[in-house]
Amino acid sequence: MFKTKMTLGIDIGGTNTVFGFVDNQGHVIIEKTIPTEAKQGAQKLFSELAKNIKNILTKLQKNYEFMGVGIGAPNANYFSGSVENPPNLSWGHVNIVEAFQKHFDIPVFVTNDANATAIGEMLFGAARGMKNFIVLTLGTGLGSGIVIDGKLVYGEDGFAGELGHTCVEINGRQCGCGNKGCLEAYVSATGIKKTVFNLLGSRTAESALRDISYHQLTAKKIAELANHNDPIALEAFQFTGKLLGLSMANAVAFSRPEAIILFGGLAAAGELLLAPTRISFEEHLLGIFRGKIKILKSGLEVGNSAVLGAAALAWSELETKKLI
Amino acid sequence: MFKTKMTLGIDIGGTNTVFGFVDNQGHVIIEKTIPTEAKQGAQKLFSELAKNIKNILTKLQKNYEFMGVGIGAPNANYFSGSVENPPNLSWGHVNIVEAFQKHFDIPVFVTNDANATAIGEMLFGAARGMKNFIVLTLGTGLGSGIVIDGKLVYGEDGFAGELGHTCVEINGRQCGCGNKGCLEAYVSATGIKKTVFNLLGSRTAESALRDISYHQLTAKKIAELANHNDPIALEAFQFTGKLLGLSMANAVAFSRPEAIILFGGLAAAGELLLAPTRISFEEHLLGIFRGKIKILKSGLEVGNSAVLGAAALAWSELETKKLI
Repeated sequence: MFKTKMTLGIDIGGTNTVFGFVDNQGHVIIEKTIPTEAKQGAQKLFSELAKNIKNILTKLQKNYEFMGVGIGAPNANYFSGSVENPPNLSWGHVNIVEAFQKHFDIPVFVTNDANATAIGEMLFGAARGMKNFIVLTLGTGLGSGIVIDGKLVYGEDGFAGELGHTCVEINGRQCGCGNKGCLEAYVSATGIKKTVFNLLGSRTAESALRDISYHQLTAKKIAELANHNDPIALEAFQFTGKLLGLSMANAVAFSRPEAIILFGGLAAAGELLLAPTRISFEEHLLGIFRGKIKILKSGLEVGNSAVLGAAALAWSELETKKLI
Repeated sequence: MFKTKMTLGIDIGGTNTVFGFVDNQGHVIIEKTIPTEAKQGAQKLFSELAKNIKNILTKLQKNYEFMGVGIGAPNANYFSGSVENPPNLSWGHVNIVEAFQKHFDIPVFVTNDANATAIGEMLFGAARGMKNFIVLTLGTGLGSGIVIDGKLVYGEDGFAGELGHTCVEINGRQCGCGNKGCLEAYVSATGIKKTVFNLLGSRTAESALRDISYHQLTAKKIAELANHNDPIALEAFQFTGKLLGLSMANAVAFSRPEAIILFGGLAAAGELLLAPTRISFEEHLLGIFRGKIKILKSGLEVGNSAVLGAAALAWSELETKKLI
């Protein structure tokens, strides 16, 4: 009987690990979440994953053929197959390709979550059919995946595409990476919070934000207040959009993509962020690029995006390496 | 008899056009310069070129086989084969592939001068054997050529690689392109002159630079004075290196090259510029890249670099397209 081919996408996060089987049209056949329990180590997580996956496979194997695995994880390296001192996972250096292949004899590919998202957009999302695009993931931090001529940019060591750590202000705000003035320190859920607190210090305007502590405040709350015309919240979005637009224009000067795709929690603020971003983007673009580069929202379903990205990596690699 | 294969490299500048035949080892067989005489139009220049080339070919054809042509010109587009409103050449829009092929039935490839230089470095210069590198041409302006996975980055329309027009200071110095804060407005022969004049306004230090008018001053003179410990000239190099290093670190975050190669007149200032550049570069690099990226000087002979770059484009394209 003819079987439908499927790949497995796994997204390893600090708290939870999500995995799911996906066909080559980007339909999620089944998806499941288990706790990562980072402290118990990588081998424990992979044993747990293997048990779950074997259970699912016994049900699916009549109709589906399991082709390969894509794994998205923080600091994961495409070339080495390892995660290297990932933040939020006290794992040190672990080869996750080998960790998975202890349980299954099948091709496994890994990359970081932002790169996986970019491949997800290319196969199943807003970048379908595009050869040159950039995906910015605006979450707690700012991740990026860059595609040039249909290929993800890995650079010399697999760690290219770190636009969150380009400097947008000399001697600027301190970033979690230790440097100063990184884009991520401004344009991210954490960044906009910091901007709000700077503004509370430097402006006199009354604001509901003056009743919220730093630890209590979320980007979602800032968006909510901006939608109610809170002046500090509005200015925080204006400022964030200005730096985002400028950085997007800088990225265009580098690789001249067809589109830049915005993904992640902060991008969900919609026009609050997009309107000032568009203005700053066009203003900072070199004349020959003006009016020609699309700014798009992610085309991946919010709930499934991590698994779709990781599974897309598997599809893309299996095809490139002619394993399919 | 066995003939040595050769390509023709042509570099079209605002004042002069240099052309020369080059073998596949990067040896210049013969090189010649004629005035561009931009006002008389492109067709006139190409007729003049053709006459000269035919003369040379009658002498060379016994021992050499003419394989193809590479042309480097300002604003030249790899995809369209045209120069599009080039600065310093009042030509409007001219297809220079067609203009050349009116005279010779041979493959012709074009790109801008900064990209041609990058290919020259890859085949014959400091980037031999490298797959990922960036060449910055620090001349009157700042040009760049970016190579990822062994291929020059052209982007969606052929105009990628414009690092000179990335913004390094919000609301910064006016750039010739009309935008504000572009890298080129700071890090170029023109940029360092502007920095000197800003410093003459904001510092009280005595300096020989206070006796030189803006129009008289050259980057070479600034370097000369800096070598004699002129405080303004020294600070101008410090400042220029700081912005150059920061921008190079930003470029690394994008494509993680093996090396960044510095080319052009301002780069010839050597340690005056390199010392502060290195410090700022390492300071602004993301931790995982620190100490791993080489900063190299051009490996192309100064006198022949333009022709070598253009000829290298021809060699590279002929090979990629299996025309050789």
